[in-house]
Amino acid sequence: MPLLSNNNKYCYVMDMEVRDYELDFEGIVNNANYLHYMEHTRHRFCEDAGLSFKEMLEQGIVAVVRKIEVEYHSSLRSGDRFVSGLRIERKGARFVFYQDIVRPDGEMCAKGVVTVVSLHDGKLTRGEELAKAFGKYIK
Amino acid sequence: MPLLSNNNKYCYVMDMEVRDYELDFEGIVNNANYLHYMEHTRHRFCEDAGLSFKEMLEQGIVAVVRKIEVEYHSSLRSGDRFVSGLRIERKGARFVFYQDIVRPDGEMCAKGVVTVVSLHDGKLTRGEELAKAFGKYIK
Amino acid sequence: MPLLSNNNKYCYVMDMEVRDYELDFEGIVNNANYLHYMEHTRHRFCEDAGLSFKEMLEQGIVAVVRKIEVEYHSSLRSGDRFVSGLRIERKGARFVFYQDIVRPDGEMCAKGVVTVVSLHDGKLTRGEELAKAFGKYIK
Amino acid sequence: MPLLSNNNKYCYVMDMEVRDYELDFEGIVNNANYLHYMEHTRHRFCEDAGLSFKEMLEQGIVAVVRKIEVEYHSSLRSGDRFVSGLRIERKGARFVFYQDIVRPDGEMCAKGVVTVVSLHDGKLTRGEELAKAFGKYIK
Repeated sequence: MPLLSNNNKYCYVMDMEVRDYELDFEGIVNNANYLHYMEHTRHRFCEDAGLSFKEMLEQGIVAVVRKIEVEYHSSLRSGDRFVSGLRIERKGARFVFYQDIVRPDGEMCAKGVVTVVSLHDGKLTRGEELAKAFGKYIK
Repeated sequence: MPLLSNNNKYCYVMDMEVRDYELDFEGIVNNANYLHYMEHTRHRFCEDAGLSFKEMLEQGIVAVVRKIEVEYHSSLRSGDRFVSGLRIERKGARFVFYQDIVRPDGEMCAKGVVTVVSLHDGKLTRGEELAKAFGKYIK
Repeated sequence: MPLLSNNNKYCYVMDMEVRDYELDFEGIVNNANYLHYMEHTRHRFCEDAGLSFKEMLEQGIVAVVRKIEVEYHSSLRSGDRFVSGLRIERKGARFVFYQDIVRPDGEMCAKGVVTVVSLHDGKLTRGEELAKAFGKYIK
Repeated sequence: MPLLSNNNKYCYVMDMEVRDYELDFEGIVNNANYLHYMEHTRHRFCEDAGLSFKEMLEQGIVAVVRKIEVEYHSSLRSGDRFVSGLRIERKGARFVFYQDIVRPDGEMCAKGVVTVVSLHDGKLTRGEELAKAFGKYIK
């Protein structure tokens, strides 16, 4: 059972834990690893939504991250378990993932906003194939 | 000689190159690695400015990244060389690094804005020790 | 329930899965990430055995990897789940971890042999504190 | 000018430096990063030898690492610069890279032995295309 049950706030949540190689010399998880956590969560969500980046790639469609914003609130440390949750919004051709990294007790560690577009043979698409897969998750 | 000479725009520039282990399965540098490039550039700049994160740590002062925003423009690929440049602004207790990852021909790959504060024994400081080191670089 | 039940062969097993940022441009997990998988498994095993690298560090004792050998058999790819198992032997002051990365169907992906010693204030110890923690697992 | 001039011992050397995100919580470079250093050095050497992994991939030929052995002697730390050197031997279908990570003063940090074979459409080749590129470097 996930540490945080899937509620109204998120359309996908998964449990993760800090791995010691992700720590830096201050004993806290290096900033870049939060992007790794968030990417893995998005890919797992896409898989769940029936969307495969690999299949898209074979069709010449590439989902590309255009922008990432991360606010760091409380540092993760060795041995910490946490929940990675996301919800998604569509804004025209852009799909915006709101991603939280939260301790089991609810303390916010990091909040991310990740903007994704899809390209077909290098050109911006209206994102219809993403919209089809994500439709039921978009409010 | 650096690919891009140090000009008015940046207060620190360094040449870097893509390493193949930084690529993902689409053959482009994974988003998280741009944070690595930018962090390494900040640390080298700090070293140049006479500031050591390690020494600060020994005095109980920790420079902490509060927020990162990265816009991805053009993907780096295997064999690419690039320039990583930064300039810095002070906004109260916050130090804001504007960091560009640019191809030698001037094409922008990624633009980052990284907000750093300093903590003493876990409490927010006014950042005087950072200001002293960065003073001559802040316009 | 783990993909592979804890059997005579291993004294510790854990389930893991490939994360897409671990892939390289050939679409297979980069070699260095197998060391990450194996390190995380060792640290989880140590935690299970009641041994904390962090606590040891506070006592001036550091467990240091002296040698790593990895044979790569079959590459892990996007979406793969796998089992990471280890067993341990003591050879004088050295502790040798035999670590396998195995697909759920039993196909071997990588076999590692990792040799660890412990240092106290930089000097090689006989490894008594490790032996105490690992005793029940060493055959 | 490289820290260590290219001498009889190595057929390729390059200067590198520790980046702080490569450190772990003990303040030393994490073991897996030495594989990254060595991989980057091999790829740069291959590029120098006129061999491109990317071009090989387009021809259906993949150079695959079969085995890695690394002995860790002295840990690299924040701010360290080092030299990464390699020499190569051919043993039948296998190409063996002997790779050293050395401090500028000559102190050995890590010694690696990396065994590579080449596959064509998944089948082991005799490595003729590698031998052609590496010929002048193999003693």
